[in-house]
Amino acid sequence: MKEFALIAELTRSLPKNDTVVVGSGDDCAVLDLGLPDQFVLFKTDAVVEGMHFLTECEPEKIGRKALARCLSDIAAMGGAASSALVTIALPKKFDVEFVKRIYTGLNEIAAAHGLAIVGGETTTNPERVLISISLLGLVDKKKCILRSGAKVNDAIFVSGELGGSLAGRHLEFEPRLAEARWLAQNFQIHSMIDLSDGLASDLRHILHASKVGADILASAIPISRAAKLQARAESSSKPPLLSALTDGEDFELLFTVNTKDAVPLLDGWKKEFPKTKLSCIGKIIAGHSLKLHDKGGVRELSAKGYEHFA
Amino acid sequence: MKEFALIAELTRSLPKNDTVVVGSGDDCAVLDLGLPDQFVLFKTDAVVEGMHFLTECEPEKIGRKALARCLSDIAAMGGAASSALVTIALPKKFDVEFVKRIYTGLNEIAAAHGLAIVGGETTTNPERVLISISLLGLVDKKKCILRSGAKVNDAIFVSGELGGSLAGRHLEFEPRLAEARWLAQNFQIHSMIDLSDGLASDLRHILHASKVGADILASAIPISRAAKLQARAESSSKPPLLSALTDGEDFELLFTVNTKDAVPLLDGWKKEFPKTKLSCIGKIIAGHSLKLHDKGGVRELSAKGYEHFA
Repeated sequence: MKEFALIAELTRSLPKNDTVVVGSGDDCAVLDLGLPDQFVLFKTDAVVEGMHFLTECEPEKIGRKALARCLSDIAAMGGAASSALVTIALPKKFDVEFVKRIYTGLNEIAAAHGLAIVGGETTTNPERVLISISLLGLVDKKKCILRSGAKVNDAIFVSGELGGSLAGRHLEFEPRLAEARWLAQNFQIHSMIDLSDGLASDLRHILHASKVGADILASAIPISRAAKLQARAESSSKPPLLSALTDGEDFELLFTVNTKDAVPLLDGWKKEFPKTKLSCIGKIIAGHSLKLHDKGGVRELSAKGYEHFA
Repeated sequence: MKEFALIAELTRSLPKNDTVVVGSGDDCAVLDLGLPDQFVLFKTDAVVEGMHFLTECEPEKIGRKALARCLSDIAAMGGAASSALVTIALPKKFDVEFVKRIYTGLNEIAAAHGLAIVGGETTTNPERVLISISLLGLVDKKKCILRSGAKVNDAIFVSGELGGSLAGRHLEFEPRLAEARWLAQNFQIHSMIDLSDGLASDLRHILHASKVGADILASAIPISRAAKLQARAESSSKPPLLSALTDGEDFELLFTVNTKDAVPLLDGWKKEFPKTKLSCIGKIIAGHSLKLHDKGGVRELSAKGYEHFA
């Protein structure tokens, strides 16, 4: 059974209470704790040695990545990060300097986003390092963006360039908090998600949650230089388009808006974030298919993003 | 370097913001997110296969324990639990039934305490199962109990009986949420902690945070039947008193109140919780020593509780 299928089964019968606005199944849980204008966002995410980073990685970058991934989920809701707890599980004979350098990376990116680190714990995991981050955020009730709001005829946008993240970007990406807040403040964003598993997989999460389909245009998908270089360097590797669709760990924003907002949004974005690409890659359609249009015609896009339990 | 020393160093320079009332160093972080009468409590805690539970453990009990430990920390602040996220890291070839049964245990104890489970994640940890819980709670601003409020001459109380928890109680204990809320509502509790590392170690956390010392009376320490049986069964094992002081995983409440409240508190407790022992084990003194009085005289109590990095 794949990870997603297991999660679907487990989440069907989770206990709820009055505070739950959105439980599992979006980028963050959304809670109404009684604040008049804001929801609380609640998220957890773990990185594991050998899976999400390699032993030889600079520890500052490991710490940074662990937190940046979680911040990207807060961004995907249109929220701002508030405070975090850090759990580090370590082999018994760990290097104190290694742990301090992980915290240097964590502290730097936290401070840059006004986030407090309010504790956590160290525990033992004998064979490998595991870092789990718990994050609280806040979002205006009227600006909270879910995966489930995509509407037929919406334009589909993606920020940045996709694919080849493992060549380096996955350790250095800047979570799109400022961009997402700008989007939430200035436009009615119908749905949004951050790209962690890859466009083909993450767009499906929006389609599934919104009960719609999508047509996307291969030539409109922004392919990163890293994905192109990777394809050139190794003849056995994926074609660049497939990398952009399935590599994962892009941590870009994927969102949908009413078509009438598409042009003003693109114009505004260019002024506000001139260094960051924004691409309209297709539109939402009725049904539940995800179709890729390219020179060869139309194909159902079956390429799946990375799943943890392959 | 021991775990506590490393944590002390790491926590000195954590980034803060305006919401932080208490950062690291208490049972939970305490946050002011703007609710008029309540603070938000934020806590994370992990259990690791081979450390906190054995492979042959019933999965329901593993899930239950993972959450109950965290609930015990919410209790120690006088709070109520609100919602949780669950991170389960698993070997690649895991048994789906095992994971479902872990969730059965989690869901049962969550529902019993009105707690919502609002998501989480499954990830890969190839060699062993690790479960990390993130918990949000709420506490009345005027009733939030810290470790740092103990005052000279306070009476020191402990609930239940201590020691020998690994014989079974650690998988079945009931977190003292109802008892703690009753204490917070009816008395001015100066300081409180839940016993996870053992009385000798956890009392030191209160003393350190409150900048005081304590005299405790060996004959007043409530020793569990399990600790006594354990000492009888194995001649090589700890004496029962040492078990009660250092075994850890008791998850009882340790708290201090003004001496004048001691008798009404004991009387009220007996009526409210007739099945649960409450013992006055000593008093807070000036200075920073922790002295154990027994038939042999007075000794500085040096026995440390269990530390994860020995």
